[in-house]
Amino acid sequence: MTSWLDLDATDPFGLQTLPYGVFSTADRPTPRIGVRIGGFVLDAAAAAEQAGMESGETWACSSLNRFLGRGPQAWAAAREWLTMVLSGDAYRDAVEPHLHPLDAVTMHLPFEVADYVDFYAAEHHAANVGQIFRPDSPDLPAAWKHLPIAYHGRAGTVVASGTDVVRPSGQHRAAGSSLPSFGPSARLDIEAEVGFVVGGATDLGMPVPLSEAGDHLFGVVLLNDWSARDIQAWEYVPLGPFLGKSFATSISAWVTPLAALTEARVDLPGQEPEPLPYLSGPAARGIDLHLQVTVNGTVVARPEFRHVYWSPEQMLAHLTVNGASLRNGDLFASGTVSGAEAHTRGSLLELTWNGRDRLELDDGTARGFLEDGDVVTMTAWAPGPGGSRVGVSEVTGRIVPARQPASGGGYGER
Amino acid sequence: MTSWLDLDATDPFGLQTLPYGVFSTADRPTPRIGVRIGGFVLDAAAAAEQAGMESGETWACSSLNRFLGRGPQAWAAAREWLTMVLSGDAYRDAVEPHLHPLDAVTMHLPFEVADYVDFYAAEHHAANVGQIFRPDSPDLPAAWKHLPIAYHGRAGTVVASGTDVVRPSGQHRAAGSSLPSFGPSARLDIEAEVGFVVGGATDLGMPVPLSEAGDHLFGVVLLNDWSARDIQAWEYVPLGPFLGKSFATSISAWVTPLAALTEARVDLPGQEPEPLPYLSGPAARGIDLHLQVTVNGTVVARPEFRHVYWSPEQMLAHLTVNGASLRNGDLFASGTVSGAEAHTRGSLLELTWNGRDRLELDDGTARGFLEDGDVVTMTAWAPGPGGSRVGVSEVTGRIVPARQPASGGGYGER
Repeated sequence: MTSWLDLDATDPFGLQTLPYGVFSTADRPTPRIGVRIGGFVLDAAAAAEQAGMESGETWACSSLNRFLGRGPQAWAAAREWLTMVLSGDAYRDAVEPHLHPLDAVTMHLPFEVADYVDFYAAEHHAANVGQIFRPDSPDLPAAWKHLPIAYHGRAGTVVASGTDVVRPSGQHRAAGSSLPSFGPSARLDIEAEVGFVVGGATDLGMPVPLSEAGDHLFGVVLLNDWSARDIQAWEYVPLGPFLGKSFATSISAWVTPLAALTEARVDLPGQEPEPLPYLSGPAARGIDLHLQVTVNGTVVARPEFRHVYWSPEQMLAHLTVNGASLRNGDLFASGTVSGAEAHTRGSLLELTWNGRDRLELDDGTARGFLEDGDVVTMTAWAPGPGGSRVGVSEVTGRIVPARQPASGGGYGER
Repeated sequence: MTSWLDLDATDPFGLQTLPYGVFSTADRPTPRIGVRIGGFVLDAAAAAEQAGMESGETWACSSLNRFLGRGPQAWAAAREWLTMVLSGDAYRDAVEPHLHPLDAVTMHLPFEVADYVDFYAAEHHAANVGQIFRPDSPDLPAAWKHLPIAYHGRAGTVVASGTDVVRPSGQHRAAGSSLPSFGPSARLDIEAEVGFVVGGATDLGMPVPLSEAGDHLFGVVLLNDWSARDIQAWEYVPLGPFLGKSFATSISAWVTPLAALTEARVDLPGQEPEPLPYLSGPAARGIDLHLQVTVNGTVVARPEFRHVYWSPEQMLAHLTVNGASLRNGDLFASGTVSGAEAHTRGSLLELTWNGRDRLELDDGTARGFLEDGDVVTMTAWAPGPGGSRVGVSEVTGRIVPARQPASGGGYGER
């Protein structure tokens, strides 16, 4: 199937992809839902109205949340309609006026994040972090192969790709010191993750079985779980990461539908021991997403999502098995995607082994952790139908210096 | 000052209190903002309109979030106006028609919870839990006296007082077993906490200094952080509690303004070592709130909030010091309020020392942890002006049995 748009067959944002986002334009600053096609953004609600699509009103919003609430049949119908109007010449006159060049739009956070959960689902990442942070304990926590370990993050500080990230300040404790000091993080890191956008709210007390988990998975984003390792290391016992993570989490401005990743589903790396029944079944499959992480343009890692131990459907079944309800706009992420090989590790913590082995960048500088001004960009693609590639839209962010405290604000060293 | 309502001078919900909630009535099921006075609920927006209050439109909502966004001056002005119209006879005719008897209204969640953070701020609770869960480690984590430890909870499962709580199922591991099993929690517990309702959204990257933290504290609720100890114990290393807590968190239907607790501010128990400068200052004060916890009507604990080590202002300053932004409707809680004496412990885990010392109830039964059908109710009061008591509205909830999995749902034992 080809589009009446002049798209290259190798374009990762052709008809096989069709991600959703929220955009605005200079002449109409109201944020609204758009669909990316090639180098353009289709104003979805405007096109739906002019082309006579029923129920296009769920696109007449400044976030995807309402559309997320409509569930998998509506998502499939919308995708079918978009494919039809972008391929059939009959719709061209109605639709084409609602295309905006990508470089003429401003992108916004695509949905209001309800709850944000971060998993820890890549075995090599968990083992690497265990070796670095807890050298006297087993690499993996006792429960790790029995359940996908996770924690809640701060939904209110999830930001869209392109948002600057202010270097956080906080407490950290120098090696060999018994007392903490206060100041900007000196170990600011990235975590390359895949995020899953949830729709189809559920009632409190009603678990979602694994076999139905896919009905609540609308799409994927790339997610950079910025991490201040020095703040995290000092604060995280026994309740987990808090300020070391909560200052910012960046996601792609475009949400790629799971429906675009059908050809990319693959077997998991293998689960031994076999998980408990609520985590077992044919829905437990991986995704063949190829990630790339650059720092100031230098590729520093190529994580492979197929290396992740737990599937997104298992994560969702686990997160609701206690009866926790889902809301439209819930977001959960995989945790850092790291494989066995060094170049597939998704954090500087692992790539530099906690700063010991500095990474050389193409500009001749080297990094243990991030410096002010550094720009981190993650991209990904997956195999699509007929040899095509499905692009997963980038997430990028630049580190800006820590804020100086207002005079009298009471910060500073003890 | 007295009200034209026929209130007893000892009524804990007199003019000194004036908590806010969201209610509906049989003849008008739209949830709307109410103010509790004695045994009545004042329809705030309706009264404001009839009595000619300016900016009463922030009350014409089904949640407090918009009002929370207006900040401390507007909160003070609203409280002043309410006091005026409920005490001055001149307003009686305009206001009285908008009073509804408490027993004729249905209460709802008073605000949409943005992010929910749970602290761990009572020293005796942290030490007790440390002894029970980590007998081979020091009672308190290394950072405990340097910063108020906290984690993010699930905002979407915060429910209003009166909501039934379904016993959660999940993985737990029996003592002496190496493998987990799946089933309903056998160690379902309570945590008696005080929650703080945040208003005055801030920008990302801008910490709130301790001296300004009070400007973002609108009010308090009682909070029951229901906890499945068996699920929690198996899952929480290294990222903290997740499914052991996320199935439900109950809060009072009424939010008591901090402005009603002015007389109740007291010195903290004492902080040694002195906290870092961003956590030090005259705003670091406690609150003299007297809690009571009943199980099926038997008083099982009388926790004292003045025993809590960290102040709510310190908690808020800490949670934003990394630049994390606040949203209107953020909620943070103190963690379990437990003091040195056994009867001041706010969880069954501590009261029964992990089930060892069963609690006798007045009906002749005994409890290690909660049984199906148990009703847990927490109430509190604080000293008010002129010897009055400020009532903090109850939080109550009943345990209902675990849901049977749908056939074919894939639950059950391995």
